Amino acid sequence: MKVNTVFLNHAFIAETQASLLVTDLSIQRGYGIFDFFKTINGKPVFLDDHIARFYNSAKKMHLQISQTPAELKDIIAELMQRNNLPDSGIKMTLTGGYAADAYTLPAAQNLIITQTALTLPKGLQAEGTTLVTYPYQRQFSEMKTLDYAMAIWLQPFIKEKNANDVLYQYNGFVRETPRANFFIVTTEGEVVTAKDNILAGVIRKNILNLEDTGFQLTEREFSVEELYNASEAFMTSTTKNILPVLKVDGKEIGDGKVGKITTQLSALLLKKIG
Amino acid sequence: MKVNTVFLNHAFIAETQASLLVTDLSIQRGYGIFDFFKTINGKPVFLDDHIARFYNSAKKMHLQISQTPAELKDIIAELMQRNNLPDSGIKMTLTGGYAADAYTLPAAQNLIITQTALTLPKGLQAEGTTLVTYPYQRQFSEMKTLDYAMAIWLQPFIKEKNANDVLYQYNGFVRETPRANFFIVTTEGEVVTAKDNILAGVIRKNILNLEDTGFQLTEREFSVEELYNASEAFMTSTTKNILPVLKVDGKEIGDGKVGKITTQLSALLLKKIG
Repeated sequence: MKVNTVFLNHAFIAETQASLLVTDLSIQRGYGIFDFFKTINGKPVFLDDHIARFYNSAKKMHLQISQTPAELKDIIAELMQRNNLPDSGIKMTLTGGYAADAYTLPAAQNLIITQTALTLPKGLQAEGTTLVTYPYQRQFSEMKTLDYAMAIWLQPFIKEKNANDVLYQYNGFVRETPRANFFIVTTEGEVVTAKDNILAGVIRKNILNLEDTGFQLTEREFSVEELYNASEAFMTSTTKNILPVLKVDGKEIGDGKVGKITTQLSALLLKKIG
Repeated sequence: MKVNTVFLNHAFIAETQASLLVTDLSIQRGYGIFDFFKTINGKPVFLDDHIARFYNSAKKMHLQISQTPAELKDIIAELMQRNNLPDSGIKMTLTGGYAADAYTLPAAQNLIITQTALTLPKGLQAEGTTLVTYPYQRQFSEMKTLDYAMAIWLQPFIKEKNANDVLYQYNGFVRETPRANFFIVTTEGEVVTAKDNILAGVIRKNILNLEDTGFQLTEREFSVEELYNASEAFMTSTTKNILPVLKVDGKEIGDGKVGKITTQLSALLLKKIG
């Protein structure tokens, strides 16, 4: 098996060697941030959006990235050259760093950049997916932190409910899935996604910024009830692009088939991705 | 400087060598649990309480400890012998383990046991401490997970407020500090600590179980307002035992001095610790 190269702080090393001392605040206290983007045919997709969000998450979590964005881009370019994985996911992780007392945030963080081969969906995944709702509000919802404890903990629950993933709702209002934003299409044809208390997803942003779609794209709160009564629903993320959601909590959304507006938005998004 | 020995999975190694591959779910997703106890004169304090809570946290978070409690105790005994640190803190951490996809909880976890020299308070710390409140409810409050992201994130806030630590309150009701339980003594002499949505602290439990104190020890919800009007307040934890809290949000609790009941409970607790 091919061993990929990883960037760790100041060096390119084999991924089998990439480790952190156990005093790191990610291991001790779950503290850190990350971002994740894809490459298609050797070209990063929406890289500037991901870089900007990575620096923003770092700043808001009081963490320092010792490289400038330009230096980071150079490191990513070299990593891609070394790994030669045209279709891939690249994850940049910034952990709290080594804390002698396992608690106080140190001045220096640890930066890890990994690249993994990815088989990305070529078009819309017609089989769609099913979700189960769970009451939860992500902590630090605007920042992309390492805090996925709830998502990992819910894995047996999702299986038990025969769903593929979980959809967080809080006080009856729909938020997001652990790794994707969530949209509905109302019976009036309004395309709606939650406005606040969610991660600002890059695919989400690029859908909301689509021009001349002819659709009404709205950011606003919407309830689980409104979702149940929607005519279409879909998730958006870097690895999924647009993924149709056909069932939530065992209830079919609309006619339980991939919707027309979902299909049209997917085509527009794929065109934008190039 | 002396290099302590650490137990990692199946081996005793130098702490400078103790590391985890970056695919571990603690580094990827902040997923794991731990427990922490002290040794005094080479004797672990309340060890059975800590071992029981460690296994309980693991079970509730869907994690496996490959050792039995008896085997774990043997490992701890050997670690103590190797390190020869009579007064120390011993931390047992169980991380999510290595996940090839950085997301799916693997069958095998990583166990790390570290020991660090500790200077423990000999009696009641008369200088006391000051806290600032912050609205927050810990996730998975009953389990001792690695999720201290809020505590780490609040470090600049605590400094800015000239406090020594933060006290979580939720909807106006007092919970706990990031690493200690919290008690008040009302003007009627009732000793009160929060009942639910908090960590079941071992020192807290051993105070509530004190016999023939002559005090009324109660577990119930109490508000920040009731705290402001209390005559005494204190924190309890493994490293602090009982630590008087003299000010919260800049307001003196009682007369702002170490209270009589706090002092008496501290003496009873120290007697129990031996």
